[in-house]
Amino acid sequence: MSARITAVTVTPVAFADPPLLNTVGVHQPFALRAIVQIRTDDGVVGLGETYADTAHLVRLNAAAEAMVGVDVFALHSLRAVVDECLGGLTVTGGDGVAGMITTASTTDRVFSPFEVACLDIQGKILGRPVSDLLGGLVRTAVPFSAYLFYKWAGHPGSADDEWGAALDPEGIVAQARRMIDRYGFGAIKLKGGVFPPEQEIAAMHALREAFPDLPLRLDPNAAWTVDTSLEVASALTGVVEYLEDPTPGLDGMSEVARKAAMPLATNMCVVAFDQLEPSVRRDSVGVVLSDHHYWGGLQRSRLLAGICDTFGLGLSMHSNSHLGISLAAMVHLAGATPNLTYACDTHWPWKTEDVVVPGVLRIENGAVAVPTGPGLGIELDEDALARLHQQYLDCGIRDRDDTGYRQSLEPDFVNSSPRW
Amino acid sequence: MSARITAVTVTPVAFADPPLLNTVGVHQPFALRAIVQIRTDDGVVGLGETYADTAHLVRLNAAAEAMVGVDVFALHSLRAVVDECLGGLTVTGGDGVAGMITTASTTDRVFSPFEVACLDIQGKILGRPVSDLLGGLVRTAVPFSAYLFYKWAGHPGSADDEWGAALDPEGIVAQARRMIDRYGFGAIKLKGGVFPPEQEIAAMHALREAFPDLPLRLDPNAAWTVDTSLEVASALTGVVEYLEDPTPGLDGMSEVARKAAMPLATNMCVVAFDQLEPSVRRDSVGVVLSDHHYWGGLQRSRLLAGICDTFGLGLSMHSNSHLGISLAAMVHLAGATPNLTYACDTHWPWKTEDVVVPGVLRIENGAVAVPTGPGLGIELDEDALARLHQQYLDCGIRDRDDTGYRQSLEPDFVNSSPRW
Ligand SMILES: [Mg+2]
Ligand SMILES: [Mg+2]
Repeated sequence: MSARITAVTVTPVAFADPPLLNTVGVHQPFALRAIVQIRTDDGVVGLGETYADTAHLVRLNAAAEAMVGVDVFALHSLRAVVDECLGGLTVTGGDGVAGMITTASTTDRVFSPFEVACLDIQGKILGRPVSDLLGGLVRTAVPFSAYLFYKWAGHPGSADDEWGAALDPEGIVAQARRMIDRYGFGAIKLKGGVFPPEQEIAAMHALREAFPDLPLRLDPNAAWTVDTSLEVASALTGVVEYLEDPTPGLDGMSEVARKAAMPLATNMCVVAFDQLEPSVRRDSVGVVLSDHHYWGGLQRSRLLAGICDTFGLGLSMHSNSHLGISLAAMVHLAGATPNLTYACDTHWPWKTEDVVVPGVLRIENGAVAVPTGPGLGIELDEDALARLHQQYLDCGIRDRDDTGYRQSLEPDFVNSSPRW
Repeated sequence: MSARITAVTVTPVAFADPPLLNTVGVHQPFALRAIVQIRTDDGVVGLGETYADTAHLVRLNAAAEAMVGVDVFALHSLRAVVDECLGGLTVTGGDGVAGMITTASTTDRVFSPFEVACLDIQGKILGRPVSDLLGGLVRTAVPFSAYLFYKWAGHPGSADDEWGAALDPEGIVAQARRMIDRYGFGAIKLKGGVFPPEQEIAAMHALREAFPDLPLRLDPNAAWTVDTSLEVASALTGVVEYLEDPTPGLDGMSEVARKAAMPLATNMCVVAFDQLEPSVRRDSVGVVLSDHHYWGGLQRSRLLAGICDTFGLGLSMHSNSHLGISLAAMVHLAGATPNLTYACDTHWPWKTEDVVVPGVLRIENGAVAVPTGPGLGIELDEDALARLHQQYLDCGIRDRDDTGYRQSLEPDFVNSSPRW
């Protein structure tokens, strides 16, 4: 049975995003994503989703053109085609994650949505869910954490969003309460690095008091020096299950890891395969936050999971603002990963628009049931895709820039790491 | 589409094996293998092959019984079923590799043939070769090395075999010539550890002179002390592409590796996932010899390959005496492994009997074309299976014992490592 790629489309979309604060700035009014559709000579269509910053789109489109004729089962060849095609480009920059992921492999980041789309097609041909191509489910529903953010009440000049402001411990606890009431999350993550450490420590203690039984995490995106990190670690011992990227770099993380009581997690200093060996040799991190968007797709994320298992590292899952195709891929992967034993992160509750037909993907009791239909088990809503693409064309945002947006509103804001 | 396991059979077979010498003794007149057949509720049958020593057969049969009802795509679940079932057994010993692999994971070794059989079924359902389930081919034919052995002319009391004796450098060169004339091999491996190092060094120099362009390897199965290993390494610098298991243990290998000019390869001190981290931390080996029979099947061998790629280790492939089902699995895996850049090892030329219908698997120009039919792309010869099973019943051998067989012929023979 033939399954050669005959056409690939890459459609940038924009969807409304609330003013979520982080250490580099604040989320812009719209988040960007690119929707990948691959069609085979037999007429089967597969879906993928990734970042949509300018340079990334240039790379995606070049790769899309280069892969016509490749068989959807020839994933090694497909990656080689992408790699070779990127070698011929001169575009730079545009990783789509606002400088918070610095040295991920460009090939893996570009290859990822196409690999997911090919697995979607493989599953459809086989009449099996993508999870069956990853060794089968070890859990039928994937637990996620409540992903809390300090935030403004609304984007300046716009009406307040439904979540309102959260700028102190009380606001964070209220946000958590609302999110957990709605989705039943069984774990909590706070995006930190926004306020001085004392206030974020107070927020974590407030969360611990309000939710005595829920695992907690804090992620300041490397906002702290080694010394500050150790002070926070000391203050939060017994409170958080892990501390995420307290300080920049493998050496700084290693220094903190040696003295902190809890494991350190990362989606900043180990974000590509070539960073694993130096991290293992330094014992820099105890938990890697997997993310198929930059680890090169679902099969290579499986490899990452196996490496974590082999080298005694914990495994959790990272998220950027995303839509339903990404969520479907995340839960197929997580559902088929035996050693992914932490609740995954997702920005899902913060979005109000999507490109997939609703109904299949729902957060219930803090978990998303893995779709059981063929392939990813989701369906593209062509009208919604057209609408969000038009929104992309109209919104004027072409590159994620949390820092620039914040500075446009607060001219004194400086992006510095470590900040404290 | 349903693909639940309804029946599993494990059939031990014996096939004639020449008197090949190694440091622990000599091959017995028959080598043992177990042939696994898995049948699904849809009537599809998948094939696997593994060792057949007594204790291994007990484990295989227990696992075979436990897995009825499992879906052939649910490989994580299947491995968990095998793992749990083995936890309830009290049998010990019987790794089927004559003490030359010591601490491999029992679960991975038992799981392997069943995983291969499930992938065979998956491929048959999909109408695709197993290589397509491993990311697709990166090479259509897999190069193998000429695997030379010191050997007697024939088993004592039997007629000489067609290869005759090889007990000195001239005999080894003649054996190489004959094997390369017949199969076109483009690389040469000598099983050493049989004669004092000076003689084996001389054999390698003789091979270098006779085949100036072919990569050479020497494998004494840890017969040497660290000091002897370094003397051999010095004498063979520029002659061998790697030195395989010169000395026992991760620490000894690390000591040799620090001073030897060539990389050290192993199928002895890194044979399970839990040995990878200590090896990486000690820099004990430069090349891992993969073997799906004890690394837990083809998917976990893919993981091993990815780990080698990630941690800067070379990758080659190990072989024990085997039949066609194993060879088919080996070439699907090797064909789909980008970083398997050395010629693989195989005992194939030494066997005169098989259980697969001939024709698909052939060594031509030193390589085996990866079968292109659905699944493994080979067919079981039921008559041959019955004949080799009867041979198993008749031959009296129930456990591989190179040392005991040698001692029955040479009472003074002692198995010691390191020997020199
Ligand atoms: Mg993070
Ligand atoms: Mg060896």
